[in-house]
Amino acid sequence: MTIPIAAVLPIRILGTGQALPSRVVPTAEVAALCGLTAEAAEARTGVRERRWLSGSETALTLGAQAARNALAAANLALEDVDVLLNASGSQAQPIPDGGALLARELGLSGRAAYSIHGTCLSFLLALQHAALLIGSGQAARVLIVSTEGGSVGLNMAQPESALLIGDGAAAVVLGRAVRPGQGLHAARIETYPEGADHTRIQGGGTLRHPRNAAVQPQEYLFDMQGLGVLKLASRVVPAFLERLRPGLSTGLAGISRVVPHQASKVGLDLLRRYGWPEDRVEVTLPTLGNVIAASLPLTLHQALSTGRAGEGDTVLMVGTGAGLTAGGLILEL
Amino acid sequence: MTIPIAAVLPIRILGTGQALPSRVVPTAEVAALCGLTAEAAEARTGVRERRWLSGSETALTLGAQAARNALAAANLALEDVDVLLNASGSQAQPIPDGGALLARELGLSGRAAYSIHGTCLSFLLALQHAALLIGSGQAARVLIVSTEGGSVGLNMAQPESALLIGDGAAAVVLGRAVRPGQGLHAARIETYPEGADHTRIQGGGTLRHPRNAAVQPQEYLFDMQGLGVLKLASRVVPAFLERLRPGLSTGLAGISRVVPHQASKVGLDLLRRYGWPEDRVEVTLPTLGNVIAASLPLTLHQALSTGRAGEGDTVLMVGTGAGLTAGGLILEL
Repeated sequence: MTIPIAAVLPIRILGTGQALPSRVVPTAEVAALCGLTAEAAEARTGVRERRWLSGSETALTLGAQAARNALAAANLALEDVDVLLNASGSQAQPIPDGGALLARELGLSGRAAYSIHGTCLSFLLALQHAALLIGSGQAARVLIVSTEGGSVGLNMAQPESALLIGDGAAAVVLGRAVRPGQGLHAARIETYPEGADHTRIQGGGTLRHPRNAAVQPQEYLFDMQGLGVLKLASRVVPAFLERLRPGLSTGLAGISRVVPHQASKVGLDLLRRYGWPEDRVEVTLPTLGNVIAASLPLTLHQALSTGRAGEGDTVLMVGTGAGLTAGGLILEL
Repeated sequence: MTIPIAAVLPIRILGTGQALPSRVVPTAEVAALCGLTAEAAEARTGVRERRWLSGSETALTLGAQAARNALAAANLALEDVDVLLNASGSQAQPIPDGGALLARELGLSGRAAYSIHGTCLSFLLALQHAALLIGSGQAARVLIVSTEGGSVGLNMAQPESALLIGDGAAAVVLGRAVRPGQGLHAARIETYPEGADHTRIQGGGTLRHPRNAAVQPQEYLFDMQGLGVLKLASRVVPAFLERLRPGLSTGLAGISRVVPHQASKVGLDLLRRYGWPEDRVEVTLPTLGNVIAASLPLTLHQALSTGRAGEGDTVLMVGTGAGLTAGGLILEL
């Protein structure tokens, strides 16, 4: 599905915030767990350090703190939120939904709280949903929270994924546009399930339930076949970009700043193939790693808080995630 | 959030379908596992029998079959689907998203596939999202699939939940309305997280991960404090209904048929308090149990396929789910 370019959904970002675990984990430390040298590990992944949850920190405490920071940046109170969208790739608890758990952590009661899920692209999907709610007048302000605690499920026997994943949270408050043209100009999602086994956690759902004695401990851990992801992404992304907006697979006409999912170093390197100048692409991978669904809003927060993107700019948020799913949206700030 | 009554989102149901596990489990069988008599168990729950997955059946095979049935009923091909929404309460596998897994099972590639999650009310949320996509012209046809395999996580030491839950799947294909007034007239969701511990599965996410040796086996099982749910629901639902549409807490003016979530016998009994005549309320609990998020579309499918609801009728879909979340929508068929 593509939003016709003519029909702009009139939204704007009222505030963004992040919350990072206090524990900084240098690549040398993870490399040692994986039996690699720090130099080899960093060259391979492009990640110098990442944050991992520790002590009393959880995906919920972090998510709530990011939400409070975003509300403070927007100069809004919790009561101003009509809808709380949980847009996280990892699940805090199977039941109830993460939206309700975040609402409890925040002290928000009586408002809509639920989840939009598409693993690493959950934030894009939630932003589109928020734009539809606001654009159709069903909500005035929507708070999106992406929070990840995936480090608990890393497999040190698989360095390519173990070295990549970090924890963290980011939140964005959205409201109605204040000028013509401001808002969501395009959004597109395409899923290619021939890549469904390239990125997975098999154990823990109804198919491979923890009660099932046949499920092996490593099935609960993150498993990524990077080469498979890369091959499939290389094949489908150019045409996907053309459908998102013609010309995007060969350049950045009309785009001020690219906020990509921080999937991996090779994933980011791929963007150069499309003729996208490196200095227009926002990057958080070296210091945060791949923070699953929180990578996109964390990287957006960085672009906005450093002033590299601001009022009137047109931002392309784009990436691929488990599925394989390609997703992108074009937002005029 | 409430959709203003004036702004109807122009959608219609093009087809519905269901797929049930072949194994019928009489209440006597579950009662024996729980150490109860069949009579006591049935009187308590109102469930005579339910279906449980067996053999090679999974939530995915069932969900795909329900989807095929809904497409056949709509006289549509798989390629006609723009967006596939997974609206299931239980998760088949943590990664990738259930939307991608269902797309693979169906053989659907290159279309949007993702999840909307709010445990038992996931279908309501997905229907609202579909209405926004179709109403804004971003999609012509949306396929919603709710499929549940929750029986794998039942705790026979807790009869009130073990006796209640069944497996099953239902799917609905939505398209654009063909006459004025047809479509979604109102939708509302309110979450009261003070009830977050009343219905839960604690183990299996990042908070209580299977890798964590401290997590007890029963934490992976469904846990429900029915009395707590009932007390909180009794307190918040009447005002919720008034906000959905004034007058709904004391009668059914303008509503032809009620399709409620089949939470439990006491949950359905509660509806009488609102002055809703029993013969206008569709019920599947006695033969299917509570099929989590699939209960709402299964019950809708029954209302439509029996002719108890049809073209021009106004249906109220309503319920409470884990969270505690109250949700409802008013749909003119």
